[in-house]
Amino acid sequence: MNLKLWPTVDFIDKKGLTGKTVVVVDVLRATSVITTALYNGALDVMVKVEVEEALKLKDEETLLGGERKALRIEGFDLSNSPLEYSREKVDGKRIVLTTTNGTKTIHRAAPADKIYIGSVLNGRAVGEMLAREEKDVIIICAGTQGNFSLDDFICAGKIIYEVLNIKQIDMDDFAASAYMAYRDNKKDLISYIKMASHYKYLISLGLENDIRYCFTEDIINLVPQVKNGVIKKQAI
Amino acid sequence: MNLKLWPTVDFIDKKGLTGKTVVVVDVLRATSVITTALYNGALDVMVKVEVEEALKLKDEETLLGGERKALRIEGFDLSNSPLEYSREKVDGKRIVLTTTNGTKTIHRAAPADKIYIGSVLNGRAVGEMLAREEKDVIIICAGTQGNFSLDDFICAGKIIYEVLNIKQIDMDDFAASAYMAYRDNKKDLISYIKMASHYKYLISLGLENDIRYCFTEDIINLVPQVKNGVIKKQAI
Repeated sequence: MNLKLWPTVDFIDKKGLTGKTVVVVDVLRATSVITTALYNGALDVMVKVEVEEALKLKDEETLLGGERKALRIEGFDLSNSPLEYSREKVDGKRIVLTTTNGTKTIHRAAPADKIYIGSVLNGRAVGEMLAREEKDVIIICAGTQGNFSLDDFICAGKIIYEVLNIKQIDMDDFAASAYMAYRDNKKDLISYIKMASHYKYLISLGLENDIRYCFTEDIINLVPQVKNGVIKKQAI
Repeated sequence: MNLKLWPTVDFIDKKGLTGKTVVVVDVLRATSVITTALYNGALDVMVKVEVEEALKLKDEETLLGGERKALRIEGFDLSNSPLEYSREKVDGKRIVLTTTNGTKTIHRAAPADKIYIGSVLNGRAVGEMLAREEKDVIIICAGTQGNFSLDDFICAGKIIYEVLNIKQIDMDDFAASAYMAYRDNKKDLISYIKMASHYKYLISLGLENDIRYCFTEDIINLVPQVKNGVIKKQAI
């Protein structure tokens, strides 16, 4: 198995996705939200690029979640804070999510053979899943406004680290750099991401608790999978 | 001063170069060759993209150097091994160099206001030069065949580390990740780059000594600068 890391959405090469297994990472916060919602009993999560598309899907069994500029969208039930996706709120519900970076990346990954959702919360579970893969794997970091983001990079590194704990794989230099960033900073991931521009923006909005939660390792043992535009849990 | 890192040549945005100070890094081995040749007395280094252009410039005072697939080019005086660019060979000579990645990157950086040549050999000197800059800085990693390469990444990280030793700067997340890669691995840079695909290729050609030399820190206290397509030393 060969593993590549695409550090921003600009690296997405749609032809290069055919036949590949993809993991989308947007740790602050879309993929952490999706993982948390499914863990807390949401039936599924549908990702939409446009706010208007999401609003059309609102009904009694469906909660709308997401953000623009990291803030809750008018008319939506939930923001993009994973801490809001508690069992009390999401159990038995369907979620429709629209965010700035993560949902776009999931859409653009569509030509891939399989698409998994990765975060720090379920990083080990994703790593274990990938270690059983025979197809080549591409981890795509959503980044922030199209730019490379340290938080997604170190999360990708964690997933690769978990794969390498199980078996040796071939990987490209971007994957190796992410792996070593995690290896060298796993005792204090929050300090690593303090240099991220997106971190500074979230802190300015008072979202420290979100960041702390999103960087809690391996508290969720499931791997969300996108199928026909809908994300469901695939317990490992 | 704001510092950005462009991790591969694909990131080069010609419009984004206007008014900027650029450092080109191709540590294995073009920028190490240029730095070494000028240190050892070469009058200047001219970089050419095509072998034919270089061959036309051969005369008694000019040595042709470079590589294709990391090997010496037929009819050339020197390969792309910095260890060949000794004082005995290059003192008082002009060098014409053509390589696969580094020379292309230098050409593509042409719209920048200033272009410096960076390597591990002169990393501190480059850092000191940048710390005096008022213009925004972009470090461009040449990479290997257009792909991101760990060796250029950690060299960029060293240069940023040297700048930060002198003053605080704003930087993007790519620059921060390179800085932290160097910070976390500066005691053993060779181990860091052992995961690089280009490293494996050079080792397969028996070029361990080149790699060891190219990763020797701060033995050269000059910063080559490109002006009108010709590179001269600019002692700091």
